[in-house]
Amino acid sequence: MSQIRHALTVKREDDFAKWYQEVISAADLAEESGVRGCMVIKPWGYGIWERIQRLMDDRIKAAGVQNCYFPLFIPLSNFTREAEHVEGFAKEMAVVTHHRLISDGKGGLIPDPTAKLEEPLVVRPTSETIIGDAMARWVQSWRDLPLLTNQWANVVRWEMRTRMFLRTTEFLWQEGHTAHETREDALAETHRALEMYRACAEDDLALPVIAGEKPENERFPGAVETWSIEAMMQDGKALQAGTSHYLGTNFAHAAGIQYQDREGAQQFCHTTSWGVSTRLIGGIIMTHGDDDGLRVPPAIAPQQIVIIPMLREKPEDEALLAYCREIRSKIASQRALGEPVRVLLDIKPGKASAKRWDWVRKGAPIIVEVGPRDMENDQFVYLDRTALYQEDGKPAFIVHRAELFDRGYLGQELVRIQGSLYEEARARRDANITRGVTDWAAVADHFEKSGKYPGWVEVEWAKPTGTALDAVVEKLKALKLTIRNVPRGGVAATGTCIFTGAPATERILIARAY
Amino acid sequence: MSQIRHALTVKREDDFAKWYQEVISAADLAEESGVRGCMVIKPWGYGIWERIQRLMDDRIKAAGVQNCYFPLFIPLSNFTREAEHVEGFAKEMAVVTHHRLISDGKGGLIPDPTAKLEEPLVVRPTSETIIGDAMARWVQSWRDLPLLTNQWANVVRWEMRTRMFLRTTEFLWQEGHTAHETREDALAETHRALEMYRACAEDDLALPVIAGEKPENERFPGAVETWSIEAMMQDGKALQAGTSHYLGTNFAHAAGIQYQDREGAQQFCHTTSWGVSTRLIGGIIMTHGDDDGLRVPPAIAPQQIVIIPMLREKPEDEALLAYCREIRSKIASQRALGEPVRVLLDIKPGKASAKRWDWVRKGAPIIVEVGPRDMENDQFVYLDRTALYQEDGKPAFIVHRAELFDRGYLGQELVRIQGSLYEEARARRDANITRGVTDWAAVADHFEKSGKYPGWVEVEWAKPTGTALDAVVEKLKALKLTIRNVPRGGVAATGTCIFTGAPATERILIARAY
Repeated sequence: MSQIRHALTVKREDDFAKWYQEVISAADLAEESGVRGCMVIKPWGYGIWERIQRLMDDRIKAAGVQNCYFPLFIPLSNFTREAEHVEGFAKEMAVVTHHRLISDGKGGLIPDPTAKLEEPLVVRPTSETIIGDAMARWVQSWRDLPLLTNQWANVVRWEMRTRMFLRTTEFLWQEGHTAHETREDALAETHRALEMYRACAEDDLALPVIAGEKPENERFPGAVETWSIEAMMQDGKALQAGTSHYLGTNFAHAAGIQYQDREGAQQFCHTTSWGVSTRLIGGIIMTHGDDDGLRVPPAIAPQQIVIIPMLREKPEDEALLAYCREIRSKIASQRALGEPVRVLLDIKPGKASAKRWDWVRKGAPIIVEVGPRDMENDQFVYLDRTALYQEDGKPAFIVHRAELFDRGYLGQELVRIQGSLYEEARARRDANITRGVTDWAAVADHFEKSGKYPGWVEVEWAKPTGTALDAVVEKLKALKLTIRNVPRGGVAATGTCIFTGAPATERILIARAY
Repeated sequence: MSQIRHALTVKREDDFAKWYQEVISAADLAEESGVRGCMVIKPWGYGIWERIQRLMDDRIKAAGVQNCYFPLFIPLSNFTREAEHVEGFAKEMAVVTHHRLISDGKGGLIPDPTAKLEEPLVVRPTSETIIGDAMARWVQSWRDLPLLTNQWANVVRWEMRTRMFLRTTEFLWQEGHTAHETREDALAETHRALEMYRACAEDDLALPVIAGEKPENERFPGAVETWSIEAMMQDGKALQAGTSHYLGTNFAHAAGIQYQDREGAQQFCHTTSWGVSTRLIGGIIMTHGDDDGLRVPPAIAPQQIVIIPMLREKPEDEALLAYCREIRSKIASQRALGEPVRVLLDIKPGKASAKRWDWVRKGAPIIVEVGPRDMENDQFVYLDRTALYQEDGKPAFIVHRAELFDRGYLGQELVRIQGSLYEEARARRDANITRGVTDWAAVADHFEKSGKYPGWVEVEWAKPTGTALDAVVEKLKALKLTIRNVPRGGVAATGTCIFTGAPATERILIARAY
């Protein structure tokens, strides 16, 4: 196979972390803002987020969950009510202490000492406590249940080491919060949300994930059960891509969320919360990106098809543009993946070949180029972003009769590309999960000797708790490993726990993680 | 006309401010959150905001403006760069000074003194300065212009007296920010945004507005020109419902937004900014609300048609429900106002009549009731929210053959209701603008003697500036009046300035305002 000159300067296999940063910059997704740990999400990156929002929001609404909006600020005292919750979050929050600035007399500004808040306000790191207050007001009787709410919001967690999309001080997310009569109902909702995340990740984002329960030590602060979807990145690391928590009655006790049951007695609600964030975009980059930049799954691509006219700054350009506009409107009237096809005619100034590579780096699924000769021959030429090169390393242009535009051919191509991105990622993920490892030495050996990208290992354990679990966590930590989750509906355990030697009760996935 | 028993306890004419609060509560739009000045936006209120967002966002995108996301936090020093801007905002901002909490040793939490930020961060009150930083990075050459960005975000202004939707510490909005080569281009964008707001307000929100330029004293801090759309509330007060600013090169100088022009010289960009917020919902309430609650214009109603089955907790309910589901899916397959009709089958527990009045208070445009007899007679009964009562004070139920469902009859009704809400508000607004007042004594007289709801007065003035303008502002302030704007494209002035006696140059609107 001949040498390909890729569009990025860094290859995944050479320096995955540096490659990740280059994709973000080359695909024009986001950049550092100059404000510590906060990023600017640029149009192409934000467009992907808008697509994720739209598709996830449709699923949320279809489940009968209603969007609301709750305050950005949470009184400090709210955090002291739920003991585990404060332990988990109190270390890393932005605190508002003043509500006014005054001149420092030297041309600068300082917080006005006379405008100090009596009770500091915390910029929400998550909204269980403030939404709990609202639930306590809204729920009186079993007739008010289930109460199903969600909000799309920004949240802030003061992270020491940040990485764009994966861990930023401020990030965007949705957080679902629900209250129920019984443990069973709340657990069912926890699983409904988890399954919604799995379906959205796999069907819309083409992100194969494993849904399962987090071990005790990885639970959300204050939760009784935490479930997650875990995706494997191309470096074999795991990315927690969404979580769904059963909170028991912990937050209901803290906020006083009570209802009169069918027999007239006062009961505490069982609550849940679940969220996904802009972190998903990090997962998309590290799953679908290649050495030419990003590849955006068609379902979440802000533009699925980009038409680049090969203009020459000559009078003939006008006819070519008219032809391209006609193609554009033909494609725009078609549907793919359940929606109208999103197609852009790129008429920005610049050379067609430079624009082609810009769109390759951004990862538009199909890039159509139309020159005067194509117009004459009633044909079109396109690049499939998932199959860019011929064997000789040249771009793999595909030539078709223009009549195929009318027959919805490119829409079918989008469906095929969506499926192939998923299949490629799923096959890679499955090939990189090592099963049948039955002793700890073999696990350690695997992660020490399997090269840069050791993937995940599935082992059996006896689900130790307390100090026994602490010992396991320490042992894993020494190898920078964590337990990702206990896959839902997995094969039953049959052997012994690799940590304790006791009869195993379940299978867990062990991996390095973001 | 007989006595009508209205659904609210307070009438507009008795206590407009109290009525406003009752609508918000009775229509379940929002509530106080317990966090100072911050509200919780409940599902029906947030649903209206989502509709406004969708329709405005479509208009924004159609203009080629791209959505981005910029940081919530702005370094304090950013505000010192533009002198007027800091004057206008520095008095009322939330300031983050710490990034961690620690135990106070008494079961509470305090900001960790060792985690004090070197430079405090301000929670954005508006984003000119932080987006200006990004523009300075993004713009190099005239080829990069115009740069057209927008963000949907929460902002915080520390207001002393708050009122739900109208003035809250935190509110939701969109802010457009654009950079241009020339003054002319930037002014054209300022006017494009203004016209977009007028069209969205009038066509989507059924909110008649007057677009015009704000006087010098009402300009956005740092702006060269500020334009607004002003709506008249039912108490005759004005509500500034959206603003569009031409910022000259002020913010470009402050942030260093420069480009190389076509001749190779470095130039500062001309920038604009424009925004509308959740305040629009306050305007909708005070324009379309009546003594029975809210009336939501169909274009922005989360549900346009609500079907209430008259269930009796008997086995026959099942057939009735099946019939209602059939009606629901027939209606849902139809289109009105350019979109699929949004129809809800309300199967919550509760008496049909109680549910009817709930939907009346929320202001669903059409409320359909279907009982067993309607099913037998193949008919349906509905209430038009804009014509609730017969002359005798009873609900004005309209009975139709069910076949009208098939013919899209209710969709046409939605279009008619949208138009009639607009016409009603426009006629009231026009009837309450007093023109032809030519001396100050008559203005003062009008506002002192015209009863509770004196409306607006149009007068001519000579556009005084500096101290002469200050004197005018003081004179108006004594009567709690403000200049709303100089209507765009208005009739030319022909008389003398009512403040100075000099030859008048333009017509202005004077009013009390929110």
